[in-house]
Amino acid sequence: MKTRHAQNLLVAVLIGALALAATVAQADDPLPSWNDTAPKKAIVAFVERVTKEGSSDFVPPNERIATFDNDGTLWAEQPLYFQFLFAIDRVKALAPQHPEWKTKEPFASLLKGDTKTALTGGEHAFLEIVAATHSNLTTEEFDRIVKEWLATAKHAKTGRLYTEMVYQPMLELLAYLRANGFKTFIVSGGGVEFMRTFADKIYGIPPEQVVGSTGKLKFDLRDGTPVLVKLPEVQFIDDKDGKPVGIQMNIGHRPIAAFGNSDGDLQMLQWAAAGSGARFCLYVHHTDAEREWAYDRNSSIGRLDKGLDEAKAKGWTVVSMKDDWKTIFPTSKN
Amino acid sequence: MKTRHAQNLLVAVLIGALALAATVAQADDPLPSWNDTAPKKAIVAFVERVTKEGSSDFVPPNERIATFDNDGTLWAEQPLYFQFLFAIDRVKALAPQHPEWKTKEPFASLLKGDTKTALTGGEHAFLEIVAATHSNLTTEEFDRIVKEWLATAKHAKTGRLYTEMVYQPMLELLAYLRANGFKTFIVSGGGVEFMRTFADKIYGIPPEQVVGSTGKLKFDLRDGTPVLVKLPEVQFIDDKDGKPVGIQMNIGHRPIAAFGNSDGDLQMLQWAAAGSGARFCLYVHHTDAEREWAYDRNSSIGRLDKGLDEAKAKGWTVVSMKDDWKTIFPTSKN
Repeated sequence: MKTRHAQNLLVAVLIGALALAATVAQADDPLPSWNDTAPKKAIVAFVERVTKEGSSDFVPPNERIATFDNDGTLWAEQPLYFQFLFAIDRVKALAPQHPEWKTKEPFASLLKGDTKTALTGGEHAFLEIVAATHSNLTTEEFDRIVKEWLATAKHAKTGRLYTEMVYQPMLELLAYLRANGFKTFIVSGGGVEFMRTFADKIYGIPPEQVVGSTGKLKFDLRDGTPVLVKLPEVQFIDDKDGKPVGIQMNIGHRPIAAFGNSDGDLQMLQWAAAGSGARFCLYVHHTDAEREWAYDRNSSIGRLDKGLDEAKAKGWTVVSMKDDWKTIFPTSKN
Repeated sequence: MKTRHAQNLLVAVLIGALALAATVAQADDPLPSWNDTAPKKAIVAFVERVTKEGSSDFVPPNERIATFDNDGTLWAEQPLYFQFLFAIDRVKALAPQHPEWKTKEPFASLLKGDTKTALTGGEHAFLEIVAATHSNLTTEEFDRIVKEWLATAKHAKTGRLYTEMVYQPMLELLAYLRANGFKTFIVSGGGVEFMRTFADKIYGIPPEQVVGSTGKLKFDLRDGTPVLVKLPEVQFIDDKDGKPVGIQMNIGHRPIAAFGNSDGDLQMLQWAAAGSGARFCLYVHHTDAEREWAYDRNSSIGRLDKGLDEAKAKGWTVVSMKDDWKTIFPTSKN
């Protein structure tokens, strides 16, 4: 019993030492890729306010919900949303099985490498491409195909894998929030099953904390084995007005902090901002043509126009990628 | 510094002692309201198999997903689903504002206390009652109304609050699974916003882990303040084939354990059972006419017919409430 006691004591001391070491390491600088400009100061001040016990702004851990857009907020989105680049590659891969695509738009133009013409058909053309590439597959087949693509396809401008085009400062921000008891969610217009293939590994966000657009699914028994088949029909679009709706349906609390980069995120930020108590809203502003891209009010991808005005009017935090971030992408590619 | 050291040591020792105390308390008997019959043994054996590191059946904590039906599995559901009893009370409360209901079915019969006649209109009548009582409210208004009802309305047979008609053995099971690193979810045909009003407090299941049926929501700005308004339209029905779909949309992993009580849960159990590695499926069988209710193959509420056959064929665990549970409802009312 004496030995048992001594062992327990040793374990307890080690636990205490580890906890102390973790605190010290974190105190160093949780956001090393952020310059010491206003956005970093605002983030740290907010986190300290809501986590300080006894403070009037204290928020209990179960309500520390933070929601993040994905495209343009956690990873890049130019020249086209990466999921759409996946769809284009998938059209090319499937073309031998679809000889009719050679003469049928929008596929014919895509196969010639002319995305612009393919997309003159607007939303209808877009949905047709998504339906042709994202359906009539089981959820497990789709998962495998996306993972294979992400493991090999490279971005034309940077030569990086797409999962290497995540923003290092945002990875640090996610980790910093979680270290302070926040539960981090993705709330994005992207397809939920596309994002889940990498969100856990790259962002540390598990599948059940990814909210996105969904297609209809059909439960089926194939030779007695149940499968879920992706149908070519939209179930829910998690963009603009849809973001607060997606948050309510899937999360059921109002976030106290919300992060976006476009007008598609405006309603999510409004919804977060309008709750009671301390709130934090942040827009990532793409201002760095050299290290990333510079675009806002006139971009067809990730347009930030009304949101930029509202952020200024309401005193939300706006990150200038050029001025506020030391690095954009992770230094070591994965 | 010496005092600081001593303090750290003391804190560390206390943490160690608490951890030890918790382990001992749990080792005592995590499921005291379960008789020592086959179901309890099967539950404990499964949990030990998947949590034993180095074992071929070991499942890492992030994949220890357990899904529970609510009506009839975690709380009672007779003589009618409790959410429908809420709707009936709500029709009565709203009747003064709807003089036309005096002569309009299904409302006229409901107001006379004749639920049976009201429901002869079938699914159409049911949806009309739900729409009239669950929509044209903001999500916050609805939350408040349900909480008021749950705090005061009593069950006609037991005289208990509805939240006191949860099953004590299932509360213990939820806690036991969580103590072993499981993440517990509700996956139920009930309305997600109805269930969230009490799931955290009663079951320890937070809003983001409640999956249910949903109505459409509309984001609106009222005098500049964003609200979500419940519309009288169905978005998703989380029952039967819909349960694996709801699991995939909202959770994104396949559960390794699933718990239900009716044919409406069969596809969820099939979906859980068909994954690779150790799996656990359990049906609660309502066999206790004295302490609760006895019903299965011929009940219109919570019918268990095909599910009972499949459970027997596949060796799933079937709990007989009469034989396997020492107590049904919590002894001390809340």
